[in-house]
Amino acid sequence: MSAPLPRGQEFGTAFLQRLIDADISLARHIGVVVEAADDRTLVLCAPLKLNTNHMGTAFGGSLYSLAALAGWAWITRYVAMCEMSADAVIQDSNMQFLLPVQGELRAHLAVPAAPEIDKFRKMLERAGRGRIKLHVELRNDMSMAARFEGSFAAAIRSGSA
Amino acid sequence: MSAPLPRGQEFGTAFLQRLIDADISLARHIGVVVEAADDRTLVLCAPLKLNTNHMGTAFGGSLYSLAALAGWAWITRYVAMCEMSADAVIQDSNMQFLLPVQGELRAHLAVPAAPEIDKFRKMLERAGRGRIKLHVELRNDMSMAARFEGSFAAAIRSGSA
Repeated sequence: MSAPLPRGQEFGTAFLQRLIDADISLARHIGVVVEAADDRTLVLCAPLKLNTNHMGTAFGGSLYSLAALAGWAWITRYVAMCEMSADAVIQDSNMQFLLPVQGELRAHLAVPAAPEIDKFRKMLERAGRGRIKLHVELRNDMSMAARFEGSFAAAIRSGSA
Repeated sequence: MSAPLPRGQEFGTAFLQRLIDADISLARHIGVVVEAADDRTLVLCAPLKLNTNHMGTAFGGSLYSLAALAGWAWITRYVAMCEMSADAVIQDSNMQFLLPVQGELRAHLAVPAAPEIDKFRKMLERAGRGRIKLHVELRNDMSMAARFEGSFAAAIRSGSA
């Protein structure tokens, strides 16, 4: 059975903002804003003033949280577009910090290549479970300030598949 | 020059709680409490209700933040005990999530072995910079729910060494 065609317009920034605000307590505390969410990109932001460390730059835990949220948001959006209902969780992650972030925190998710996405969708359809690796870049102005790689697992919600 | 003897009693939970609350915005938002801080252990906690995800368990970003804070707190405490003044930042990290955390979030830092601590102190004394790897275990009741490994860099504050 092939997946339904994506219906991107229903699953834009307002859809993800509602979802994040409703489901993830920390997102409200640190002021997460969904800046872009379409088939080519997913960008989350947060103001520096809610996320400072002892040096007045962005705290590493805030940058990690924004990256992990971007991954979770991408999966949740993709699964919803496929008319499935699944819970996604992070399983493993690596993050390198390269430069201090001195202004707004910005996480840019790199949308996976089509074959990886297809494989993930088929695993969900056939086995009710899927795994996918996602990459997120944290930027300070136009420079890469940190990079995040996370493996996420999704499971179809019981009663919904 | 050898380091002064540690003066642990001045650098207990109240010392670290003041430092964390003053310096790290996210710590206040997610309710971080310093439960233990001595030469053998460092434990940070946070209530689940400020840190839930879409499944009602602890959000991965909150667990990571608590672990990274434990590492930063350990270094900051150690450096202060050595009568130095240094800024510590995280450079690289890996985190695995093994089980959902269904109650209070708890991060237990594994105090490094004495030779590693000595090496770190000597690097700071001689070069003004040091690096150290720290391990933190996140627990759900008595089970390990996640493990964090982070490389931290510390630099003596200019004008203070």
